[in-house]
Amino acid sequence: MKTPGLLKDLQQAVGTAHVLTRDSADLSAYETDWRKRHTGRALAVVRPGNTEEVAQVVRLCAQAGASLVPQGGNTGLVVGSVPDTLGRQVVLNSTRMNQVLALDAANLTLTVQAGCALQAAQNAAEQAGLLLPLSLAAEGSCTVGGNLATNAGGTQVLRFGNARELCLGLEVVTPQGEVWNGLSGLRKDNTGYDLRHLYIGSEGTLGVITAATLKLYPQPVAQLTAWAAVPSLQAAVDLLGLAQRHLGAGLSGFELMGQFALGLVDKHFPALRVPLWQTQPHCVLLENSDNESEAHARERFETLLEIALAQGCATDAVVAESLAQSRNLWHIRESISMAQAEEGLNIKHDISLPVSRIPDFCAETDALLARTLPGVRLVNFGHLGDGNLHYNVQAPQGVDPKQFLGQHETAINALVFDAVARFNGSISAEHGIGSLKAHTLPHYKSPVALALMRSIKQALDPQNIMNPGRVLAQNTD
Amino acid sequence: MKTPGLLKDLQQAVGTAHVLTRDSADLSAYETDWRKRHTGRALAVVRPGNTEEVAQVVRLCAQAGASLVPQGGNTGLVVGSVPDTLGRQVVLNSTRMNQVLALDAANLTLTVQAGCALQAAQNAAEQAGLLLPLSLAAEGSCTVGGNLATNAGGTQVLRFGNARELCLGLEVVTPQGEVWNGLSGLRKDNTGYDLRHLYIGSEGTLGVITAATLKLYPQPVAQLTAWAAVPSLQAAVDLLGLAQRHLGAGLSGFELMGQFALGLVDKHFPALRVPLWQTQPHCVLLENSDNESEAHARERFETLLEIALAQGCATDAVVAESLAQSRNLWHIRESISMAQAEEGLNIKHDISLPVSRIPDFCAETDALLARTLPGVRLVNFGHLGDGNLHYNVQAPQGVDPKQFLGQHETAINALVFDAVARFNGSISAEHGIGSLKAHTLPHYKSPVALALMRSIKQALDPQNIMNPGRVLAQNTD
Repeated sequence: MKTPGLLKDLQQAVGTAHVLTRDSADLSAYETDWRKRHTGRALAVVRPGNTEEVAQVVRLCAQAGASLVPQGGNTGLVVGSVPDTLGRQVVLNSTRMNQVLALDAANLTLTVQAGCALQAAQNAAEQAGLLLPLSLAAEGSCTVGGNLATNAGGTQVLRFGNARELCLGLEVVTPQGEVWNGLSGLRKDNTGYDLRHLYIGSEGTLGVITAATLKLYPQPVAQLTAWAAVPSLQAAVDLLGLAQRHLGAGLSGFELMGQFALGLVDKHFPALRVPLWQTQPHCVLLENSDNESEAHARERFETLLEIALAQGCATDAVVAESLAQSRNLWHIRESISMAQAEEGLNIKHDISLPVSRIPDFCAETDALLARTLPGVRLVNFGHLGDGNLHYNVQAPQGVDPKQFLGQHETAINALVFDAVARFNGSISAEHGIGSLKAHTLPHYKSPVALALMRSIKQALDPQNIMNPGRVLAQNTD
Repeated sequence: MKTPGLLKDLQQAVGTAHVLTRDSADLSAYETDWRKRHTGRALAVVRPGNTEEVAQVVRLCAQAGASLVPQGGNTGLVVGSVPDTLGRQVVLNSTRMNQVLALDAANLTLTVQAGCALQAAQNAAEQAGLLLPLSLAAEGSCTVGGNLATNAGGTQVLRFGNARELCLGLEVVTPQGEVWNGLSGLRKDNTGYDLRHLYIGSEGTLGVITAATLKLYPQPVAQLTAWAAVPSLQAAVDLLGLAQRHLGAGLSGFELMGQFALGLVDKHFPALRVPLWQTQPHCVLLENSDNESEAHARERFETLLEIALAQGCATDAVVAESLAQSRNLWHIRESISMAQAEEGLNIKHDISLPVSRIPDFCAETDALLARTLPGVRLVNFGHLGDGNLHYNVQAPQGVDPKQFLGQHETAINALVFDAVARFNGSISAEHGIGSLKAHTLPHYKSPVALALMRSIKQALDPQNIMNPGRVLAQNTD
């Protein structure tokens, strides 16, 4: 690798000011991942201003044999967008490419550059009276390119699908530095292999997403939230089925929260006044997005909850009286992560299962954990409507969390993931693989699928310069 | 190719009764495509009974260097599932693999073998009180495997998406005869490249789909149909926007029908009593699927249509008074294809455009056609909500259709497809490429995309035994 030559070439391609190196700038924000689990060392951070510059940067790196790490807001949770420690990778940061390129109200589409922050894209839609229904905790910092590269999930998947389902078209720079303009506002296009879906979720290992066309929806007229205590996980699953029948596509959120998780919120954020959590093992939060009126949304919720109470799949329930109350209920749900952090380090899992199997999965895995590690505490919550649980494991009361993690993390991960596999679930529902799970994946993914993935990677990136070692580990066991 | 050995091996693999050859059976149903544009000649038609037999058949063909043509109900419209004329291809027909494997009501999923007829899959869902919302004209004969291999569209795409969006998991036999079991009932799974979406729409050129897990939905409580006359295409687009805002996800159909198309139905099937067609250049059919009640659906429709009439985007409208009336309105829409066949041969196009560009596209292309071929008649109708038009060209009154097609088909296709390209549309919205459009595709698809497709084909099927020459032509120009 001819480093000095490459740096000069990169400066020529994007302008000296946009090639950051250790000598001239503090690179820590680009080199350390969001959860601060890993700090790498970049040869340079390059910040191109447009697609043609991205293509040039990729070509220069390919010529020099330097590998690239595509990076958006760097908010990923699986160490997929920071360089390794060898100091030879080029971080390709998209955040200068943050423009909204087009909004087509009649076609219900929004086209943005990859580096556009998700919130900026949401705002552009909202200004036109429309809804971009991708929403997640990091939306102020994360980019649309990163959302698509990792197929982000979030809180509205139940109604609108993952990031993948919201994308109609992509522009991509290939590992050879060619530009594929697949920016389409088309809802139907059967002209060959679906390259769009191949790049979505490939975590920057097959090319660089530089722009995207996203689906928009009319804004709902009213959004109402309800909260119910449920006597069991099976009751929560039954309530989900009832809600799907009665609210149809109006049901835009169905979140499950275990009693211990809510207890942590109550303990660390008492001002939030968590409702109904003490009587039953779980609560659920339901959201109804109505295109008619708030009164209609309320009437539908009340009918649903009456039936649920009569059938015994909820024992108590409240419907938010105001937007402020709705927001507060969501705020409680979103405070679980913070509350568990207050309680101390824990082992996080982002798993998914067929919805129907969640009660049995939890019964079996809870018992297995309790038997293996007596006193262990479970912070179990998540997007039940999507079959997605954040099934997090906290040290027993009084045990030092750091020591507990050091001793038991590997075994606990194996226990949980083995259980997930027995129930035909996924070890990564919405966070992806990155480098964090690249060595775990081969234990749980079908060998045939892995071989197909390797063939595709080899075919599209034979030089292995695009985010090497992510998703597919370089030295498998 | 060692033919006699291969036939014997195939008989051993699936049983003598399930290897059909010219000597022993009439193969015409397997060798001729649905529209009778092409008749091929198969070495044999093999009808395996399960996935392991499919894998064996593929391995035997790979060893013998024989290529395979996967075939479901053989109802495709682009000559993608019949053999070529050389008598050396093995047709792999899936229709013996027609079982419903599992229905999970709580998870809202249905798992079927690839050869299951779409209607049988719909019925299985219906018996459980659920809806499989893939619906198209050939549903009695077509198979779920074929629907997914071609990413079928149909009448409910506006609300539920194409076949692609309804599939959560696949089982596939690779060109090497390995089985990938990706049958998942998961709504979230970010563990590597999305192989599912790569196989969906690849028309049997990358592997053989042997089973699939599909999304189900609660049955709507009421489905109501309305019919409106609109003064222009722009008014139709405006009405679509209004309907999306007022009905939200309740809007499950929005079909456009041009006056000439409706006139043909009126002429050839007068008993259908086409409403409102004489006053305006277009009519639209709207469908509202309601999870509340028929009265509610009607009230929502009436509110919508009042606003539409007041705003001038409809000039007259009726809401069906009964289920029978609703069915009749759909029947009129579905009779357009038959009516144009009665009128004589025509040149069919299955194109898509951004919805917002449809008025300009039609204005420009209608004028261009009228200038180039005076007197030419346009049977223009389609799924406006999806941007999908069946923009069909009929010979001028009194001109022999066959002669007209012979003289002008190539030029008319080029004229229409060039216009589609100028408006960023697709030359195949829902029918696919097959062999019919494989030589046309390179003129309209990005060379970068085509090169990526070729790399993927080469990587996954280096022997080129899976449906060769379909999607990607073998001798490009």
